[in-house]
Amino acid sequence: MSEFQRPIRLGMVGGGNDAFIGAVHRIAARIDGQFDLVAGALSSTPTKAQASGDALGLAPDRTYDDFKSMAIREARLKDGIEAVAIVTPNYVHMAAAREFLKRGIHVICDKPLTSTMTDARKMAQAVEKSDALFVLTHNYTGYPLIRQAREMVAAGDLGNIRVVQVEYPQDWLTEPEDNKQADWRTDPARSGAGGSTGDIGTHAFNLACFVTGLTPESLCADIQSFVEGRQVDDNAHVMLRFQEGARGMLWCSQVAPGNENGLKLRVYGTKGGIEWEQENPNVMRHTEFGEPTRLLTRAGAGGVGQLEHLVRTPGGHPEGYLEGFANIYLEAATCIRDKQAGRYTEDDSVLPGLKEGLMGMRFIDACVRSSARDAAWISLT
Amino acid sequence: MSEFQRPIRLGMVGGGNDAFIGAVHRIAARIDGQFDLVAGALSSTPTKAQASGDALGLAPDRTYDDFKSMAIREARLKDGIEAVAIVTPNYVHMAAAREFLKRGIHVICDKPLTSTMTDARKMAQAVEKSDALFVLTHNYTGYPLIRQAREMVAAGDLGNIRVVQVEYPQDWLTEPEDNKQADWRTDPARSGAGGSTGDIGTHAFNLACFVTGLTPESLCADIQSFVEGRQVDDNAHVMLRFQEGARGMLWCSQVAPGNENGLKLRVYGTKGGIEWEQENPNVMRHTEFGEPTRLLTRAGAGGVGQLEHLVRTPGGHPEGYLEGFANIYLEAATCIRDKQAGRYTEDDSVLPGLKEGLMGMRFIDACVRSSARDAAWISLT
Amino acid sequence: MSEFQRPIRLGMVGGGNDAFIGAVHRIAARIDGQFDLVAGALSSTPTKAQASGDALGLAPDRTYDDFKSMAIREARLKDGIEAVAIVTPNYVHMAAAREFLKRGIHVICDKPLTSTMTDARKMAQAVEKSDALFVLTHNYTGYPLIRQAREMVAAGDLGNIRVVQVEYPQDWLTEPEDNKQADWRTDPARSGAGGSTGDIGTHAFNLACFVTGLTPESLCADIQSFVEGRQVDDNAHVMLRFQEGARGMLWCSQVAPGNENGLKLRVYGTKGGIEWEQENPNVMRHTEFGEPTRLLTRAGAGGVGQLEHLVRTPGGHPEGYLEGFANIYLEAATCIRDKQAGRYTEDDSVLPGLKEGLMGMRFIDACVRSSARDAAWISLT
Amino acid sequence: MSEFQRPIRLGMVGGGNDAFIGAVHRIAARIDGQFDLVAGALSSTPTKAQASGDALGLAPDRTYDDFKSMAIREARLKDGIEAVAIVTPNYVHMAAAREFLKRGIHVICDKPLTSTMTDARKMAQAVEKSDALFVLTHNYTGYPLIRQAREMVAAGDLGNIRVVQVEYPQDWLTEPEDNKQADWRTDPARSGAGGSTGDIGTHAFNLACFVTGLTPESLCADIQSFVEGRQVDDNAHVMLRFQEGARGMLWCSQVAPGNENGLKLRVYGTKGGIEWEQENPNVMRHTEFGEPTRLLTRAGAGGVGQLEHLVRTPGGHPEGYLEGFANIYLEAATCIRDKQAGRYTEDDSVLPGLKEGLMGMRFIDACVRSSARDAAWISLT
Repeated sequence: MSEFQRPIRLGMVGGGNDAFIGAVHRIAARIDGQFDLVAGALSSTPTKAQASGDALGLAPDRTYDDFKSMAIREARLKDGIEAVAIVTPNYVHMAAAREFLKRGIHVICDKPLTSTMTDARKMAQAVEKSDALFVLTHNYTGYPLIRQAREMVAAGDLGNIRVVQVEYPQDWLTEPEDNKQADWRTDPARSGAGGSTGDIGTHAFNLACFVTGLTPESLCADIQSFVEGRQVDDNAHVMLRFQEGARGMLWCSQVAPGNENGLKLRVYGTKGGIEWEQENPNVMRHTEFGEPTRLLTRAGAGGVGQLEHLVRTPGGHPEGYLEGFANIYLEAATCIRDKQAGRYTEDDSVLPGLKEGLMGMRFIDACVRSSARDAAWISLT
Repeated sequence: MSEFQRPIRLGMVGGGNDAFIGAVHRIAARIDGQFDLVAGALSSTPTKAQASGDALGLAPDRTYDDFKSMAIREARLKDGIEAVAIVTPNYVHMAAAREFLKRGIHVICDKPLTSTMTDARKMAQAVEKSDALFVLTHNYTGYPLIRQAREMVAAGDLGNIRVVQVEYPQDWLTEPEDNKQADWRTDPARSGAGGSTGDIGTHAFNLACFVTGLTPESLCADIQSFVEGRQVDDNAHVMLRFQEGARGMLWCSQVAPGNENGLKLRVYGTKGGIEWEQENPNVMRHTEFGEPTRLLTRAGAGGVGQLEHLVRTPGGHPEGYLEGFANIYLEAATCIRDKQAGRYTEDDSVLPGLKEGLMGMRFIDACVRSSARDAAWISLT
Repeated sequence: MSEFQRPIRLGMVGGGNDAFIGAVHRIAARIDGQFDLVAGALSSTPTKAQASGDALGLAPDRTYDDFKSMAIREARLKDGIEAVAIVTPNYVHMAAAREFLKRGIHVICDKPLTSTMTDARKMAQAVEKSDALFVLTHNYTGYPLIRQAREMVAAGDLGNIRVVQVEYPQDWLTEPEDNKQADWRTDPARSGAGGSTGDIGTHAFNLACFVTGLTPESLCADIQSFVEGRQVDDNAHVMLRFQEGARGMLWCSQVAPGNENGLKLRVYGTKGGIEWEQENPNVMRHTEFGEPTRLLTRAGAGGVGQLEHLVRTPGGHPEGYLEGFANIYLEAATCIRDKQAGRYTEDDSVLPGLKEGLMGMRFIDACVRSSARDAAWISLT
Repeated sequence: MSEFQRPIRLGMVGGGNDAFIGAVHRIAARIDGQFDLVAGALSSTPTKAQASGDALGLAPDRTYDDFKSMAIREARLKDGIEAVAIVTPNYVHMAAAREFLKRGIHVICDKPLTSTMTDARKMAQAVEKSDALFVLTHNYTGYPLIRQAREMVAAGDLGNIRVVQVEYPQDWLTEPEDNKQADWRTDPARSGAGGSTGDIGTHAFNLACFVTGLTPESLCADIQSFVEGRQVDDNAHVMLRFQEGARGMLWCSQVAPGNENGLKLRVYGTKGGIEWEQENPNVMRHTEFGEPTRLLTRAGAGGVGQLEHLVRTPGGHPEGYLEGFANIYLEAATCIRDKQAGRYTEDDSVLPGLKEGLMGMRFIDACVRSSARDAAWISLT
């Protein structure tokens, strides 16, 4: 990993004190020294925005009460931010992103794309009109072994893909929610129509597509709100069809006691299979049909392709969630610099962006609509 | 485990040389000394039947060319068989079982019940008319930790069940079949309409019902025959609904490279969850919501109920597939002796039998019909 | 696995009601149909001997009050026992085995060989003078993957062996004992000078030698009796040197909470390493240096050599402790038949016997003496 | 985790381009925003020192050719460094640290303390004379679950400790070395008398002491250099005695194929046991004797004490090696600020420092001397 470049000036929208994902973005941006956080509209509550800016050591005049003022002023500053991380509840994503995109400020946005399909379409317009980069932090795609899995599938190591099993069980919403994290995530007005489907199902769906390179064709879903009074789904069973003929299943749940963050992907083809679990992300099982299963390790023997830039420590020195997340920021930094240098083309990057975000929105929407129609198949194309 | 009783005289239909499941039944019958194999119609090919009888040390006059002759003569013998194990391909189950049932000989029959729904109805009539016992070897219900799971659910340890995830991946049919085991299992005339659904899906479905005690309401399925030219399914994705409100997913596959015999059950309720995998059956994860996961071990700390009779070795001395299978035979022996002593009532036993067999047939049939109707919901009641 | 042969007539010394290991031997003898238990001196208490014989269905006239009467009478019977299993506390092994050996009855004896070195020498004489077979049930050598490990080492797959790590932690004696199993095992008069070293350390030591084929040269040991008042060791730390230059460590403990029966062997050579744990014996890790670790499974891909006769079920259908134990009996049956047919030579078998038993006794003795001399090196040759 | 404070100005000695541990220290210092790297003497080769400084964005006038010039000038600067990280080969530690310590600059030094006992004593004097903080990066003590283990032992959850098993196998030196990392680590002049004992054995030994709080009394060791021509040990077998009566074993190896970085600690007491492995550091097994084993997870249920400041992500979002390392830096930052504010007392911190460093040096020395005397016991007090 090189450590050569001037850090990119970064702003943040959302992520005030006690927001979980904001702190994660800040660490991910900082870990490789590629970004300097210099401005923020950290909360929609002005006093909290100010206090949060202080806590992060932001200059008072770069701590803003709202994202629009921030976008306007930063765009004018000589040393204004070059990129912004948007880490608000979903319903704010579009409005915030739009302000920065239209001023040419690169956007790194938390997933899912937006809270509604309408917003998603507006976001698409904003991204398409802008020359700035738009990155969606489907952070699990940043794990080195996930990259290796993708390369192995692309290289044909698994043959033609037949079956894709992806799941993402958690248990933190097993009982009625009573904290800030749960609060907005279970409010359709702020989170969107999907509960577990939006918060974690989109990750699972994205990961399956990212690794397999398959094109989702349709899905049928049976979603539930098991906890009484909950307005969004907390469990979803989904069957998937891909255009290439593969079939899949997706399960996401926030009411599965004993599961902290159990994202797991399994892919099977005519020639072999792979299995990977996020909670121990430094190892991946690979079986060539008829041969013993091999344990591929991050940075260990059996690696493929050009992944060195995504690895900070040798095998056996585990990297985790934050390093995977940081890989998204690391590659975003490279893209931003390429953009600034006029040498960026979209093919250079596998970073999730608008396309993946729209697909995620279609996924949520299809789950909700399919379930409302007793698990009818809904097209994803 | 007691070792007190005179062994029960057992016959066998099917299970000639190189049949896999016949040898398993014989070991399961022998391991606890509760049965003596004394007669057999081991193959539909007379020379092979004779050679197989010789190999097993059966008396020549108790080695039969066909099951009907065997049933007739053994029923008349003073020391004729008291029970018979039927381990033929599925399409023979009904005709064979009927001959013994109507002569009062207890039947231990391999699953699934039959190859067709018509046969299943005939089997039901034969069982209902007979006073003899009918046991279906859903052997995975014999694992001690599966019994413990069932008792824990029944005792309310998991609260109200919400989600049931069961899967059964294998890989041995990843490529076109070329052996005897695969041969009849992929021939609808001998195996029935279901491929993976019949051979392993029924096990998975039965296990989910056995442990949870839930009543299946309906399912929708998307089944596939991935290997070209295969006439039955080799992969099935199924969504389940239970009358009590729980939802479930079932995946079975014979084309998932890296999976030898990966039956796995996970059950989640309002108060906790359990997870168990057949390939390492001596441990079960149990999480009371909000508490650390506990590893319950066979015969170890944390056991519940009256399971001692199903355990031969202390914790840490692993028991496996054959011991689980043997537990079915062990309990069948108890039931047979209770029958003989006139003290048997159906409530005394949790052994799978006709009811479970019919439910399994409905499962296969519903999977095939649902899939033919683009994954429409099919009632299981 | 063939099922052809007339069962061998077996007697048993020890193993009365509620003895753990006696029941294990009986199942191991029965599981493959190679032995018929027909006589026994099951307890040193006559009423219990009789009750135990009844419970096992032995003929009253073949239930003996003591092993000597049994040996004398059975040797004279036309259909007398051909082999005897000795499953008493250690201090009885020699006297019992001698009576049978001198009458040409094959002996299958539980480990360790005897309780004292003096007895061990007498046992050696008795075995050497007899033409009968003497098998010591170091049952862990019967696991198929242990056989595979041995073959891999012998074939040079691991290169020259450098390091051998073997351990055998249990926790059942963490607190002062209060049951029959613990009773004699912690009494030096009945068990011998070694506690954990004799009961489980000998297994660990034997397994390390069995797999590596190395010749133990010397050891130094630090043994402890952690539980107050205990007269034998309940924990032992041992360093090993082998003549070929390899070094090893052995740890056995009965006071390690959380360990049920944690026998584990790891072997490392110039070209690769293997790791195997008894509690999940159906998988073994193998790493060729510089390559990803492979998971070799019992009866799965990556198998070597001629092990089919030791495997009853396909991969993924776990076999366990009893099947491993049964493999010792299965091979003993073959040896006995070869003996009877005059075609037996010692090289035909890898079964542990006198030589391994004597080495185990030297191991116990060396541990005790080394520890008494502050962990001085004691020769094992 | 708070993010409030002005970053501490940090310098670095060693850690030029392609040094492994230097990059790790920089990430660990950066991840929580507590340090700013502003000066460096990054290589003993001036051109490389300069190039490395450039690569890291250091100001040219704060990129030094040698640590002494750096210490002198930085001590005089108004905004000079407040702390320095020393990440050179071992033989440079003392001389470098001394220059900073005597100028009141806090030192964060890689382990082991020095390369020789003579240097260790000089280091002790330098530390004792200085008012500056001296932290030794035994980074594995920074893992949250290791802290929890320490607290559990201290709280008596395990009862009186009896047995400590610690091991640290790697495989990267299985064959003759041919890279920079291996180069100095296998040269006694630069690394010290210990090979594996110094590089990884000291970590294992430190971790055992850190968690148990026991006082090492003596050890006996059998160390080896398996690879021909290697001048330092690459495998060590060690038996440990603690003053409180506990016994232990330590194994470290760099020639164990299949092990990347297998640090593992197991501690057993009268009331329970714990087991933890570095390669999957987010889970720890805990068994209260007689109860099922519990899986304690980082930031999950079952946590104890005040560890929140060492945790950045919720349970199931794995943290790894870098976060554990960063925890050392995070606490060092707190200590430095406390020092600067005049409120620091040694009892406030569990950070490893001089005492642990000296104990590690005694460990290496005792291993080498014990082995030279055929594994005689050597006092550690």
